[in-house]
Amino acid sequence: MYEFKTQRKVEFADTDMGGIMHFSRYFVFMETAEHQFLDSIGTSVSLELDGKSIGWPRVAASCDYKSPARFGDLLEIHVRVRRKGEKSMTYDFTFGRDDEVLASGSMTSVCCVLEPSEKVRAIPIPLCIAEKIDEPPQS
Amino acid sequence: MYEFKTQRKVEFADTDMGGIMHFSRYFVFMETAEHQFLDSIGTSVSLELDGKSIGWPRVAASCDYKSPARFGDLLEIHVRVRRKGEKSMTYDFTFGRDDEVLASGSMTSVCCVLEPSEKVRAIPIPLCIAEKIDEPPQS
Amino acid sequence: MYEFKTQRKVEFADTDMGGIMHFSRYFVFMETAEHQFLDSIGTSVSLELDGKSIGWPRVAASCDYKSPARFGDLLEIHVRVRRKGEKSMTYDFTFGRDDEVLASGSMTSVCCVLEPSEKVRAIPIPLCIAEKIDEPPQS
Amino acid sequence: MYEFKTQRKVEFADTDMGGIMHFSRYFVFMETAEHQFLDSIGTSVSLELDGKSIGWPRVAASCDYKSPARFGDLLEIHVRVRRKGEKSMTYDFTFGRDDEVLASGSMTSVCCVLEPSEKVRAIPIPLCIAEKIDEPPQS
Repeated sequence: MYEFKTQRKVEFADTDMGGIMHFSRYFVFMETAEHQFLDSIGTSVSLELDGKSIGWPRVAASCDYKSPARFGDLLEIHVRVRRKGEKSMTYDFTFGRDDEVLASGSMTSVCCVLEPSEKVRAIPIPLCIAEKIDEPPQS
Repeated sequence: MYEFKTQRKVEFADTDMGGIMHFSRYFVFMETAEHQFLDSIGTSVSLELDGKSIGWPRVAASCDYKSPARFGDLLEIHVRVRRKGEKSMTYDFTFGRDDEVLASGSMTSVCCVLEPSEKVRAIPIPLCIAEKIDEPPQS
Repeated sequence: MYEFKTQRKVEFADTDMGGIMHFSRYFVFMETAEHQFLDSIGTSVSLELDGKSIGWPRVAASCDYKSPARFGDLLEIHVRVRRKGEKSMTYDFTFGRDDEVLASGSMTSVCCVLEPSEKVRAIPIPLCIAEKIDEPPQS
Repeated sequence: MYEFKTQRKVEFADTDMGGIMHFSRYFVFMETAEHQFLDSIGTSVSLELDGKSIGWPRVAASCDYKSPARFGDLLEIHVRVRRKGEKSMTYDFTFGRDDEVLASGSMTSVCCVLEPSEKVRAIPIPLCIAEKIDEPPQS
């Protein structure tokens, strides 16, 4: 699997006094879409492996805004794997409304052991996850 | 000590498309003011005691809104102890701008042991904290 | 109509370092559930009437927290009209997970004309809305 | 002026269940620091010019995360103009704690007329603002 599509309505609390969705909320929408992608392939963003908590802290996130989203808009969110690294995943996202792309973003998450007693430490993506994620065909 | 005053400016991200501060943000402002009160008496909202993490989960929160706060407003936030219980604290809050009260709220927090391996459990407020907090004089 | 039920998953960004859903997010969930209730009866939280913008600013909001909600929990949100006033609506909310009530809240919203050039002004709930909302049968 | 420094404490509501500041909150911190920069040079992010509302919608935002920020951390936020365009501003940001850079970001905002009755429209940065902002010396 290398892509996932979902929909999400812009809520009142997502807007700002400019009358549009606040630019920081796109990052929350991306994060939740990433989690839904992981759910869709039968894994989770927060899982235990050999008794250790595994998580995916972000190391980079960006978004380009073309046209504003407004309260009540039903956004089409498209998640697509850009790169599957040994220890990290990079995803691209688009936010569409009808046939218009409103924004596009990307996010890089690193697979880490997250134990209170240890320093956060990157690890190779566990095979049980890695084998379910593909890089998209090169075009 | 039974009261504390602080100021906080309404940020752009605190507003909604109604052009005013979103009603849910008052609760964040109350929480941070509570933490500043605890800091001001030399304790903290998140502390270790006998090797256990102590925290203050909320059991109740409410707010009455009289007049809207807007972007850039400098709010005067007044925290006042309403009741010091054996295991809980109830605080009252007012949000003012110039001489006008915009909103007033209250919040009850319970002193708890928060350990990943244990169920959340209320405990008597540790003496080192309790002795620094007073109930206000009855008027 | 006097009640409405919806479901909503707790997202990562809804949580705090206590490992649970932040108490302020319940208010956002209540607000969106209120909007979904209004949608379900064919009206909207943001509408035009005789060329004026009508909205529902909150005058009061409260929540009691019994047991924490966590990342990934599917919350059952139940909206119920408590009181239909001439100019305001009071709603009660419960947040459940499986058969457990995690939290219950309430919110009072006032029907207002919201025009940039005018002071916010409460008005009687327009008949086209009022006739679709009932008070629940007294028990 | 081409730079501005401010400080901001990480609040409880800025954190997530990973125990660190949520990655989306850095964008709110950047936005507010940008506004404080504009305030510091005597202008504002939201102003009227010839009877029209002028604002600065974002067209791009990004952040790289090196090390997590935690509850109570006092972040040193450094805003620096990267580019002053005819109609847009690009800023770079760093988030530091003590002598460590935790994250760095950038944001591009476009000067626009924001009138309810008109389509959002980019305009040259008004002279009264432009003359107060410099590009930093090339090194």
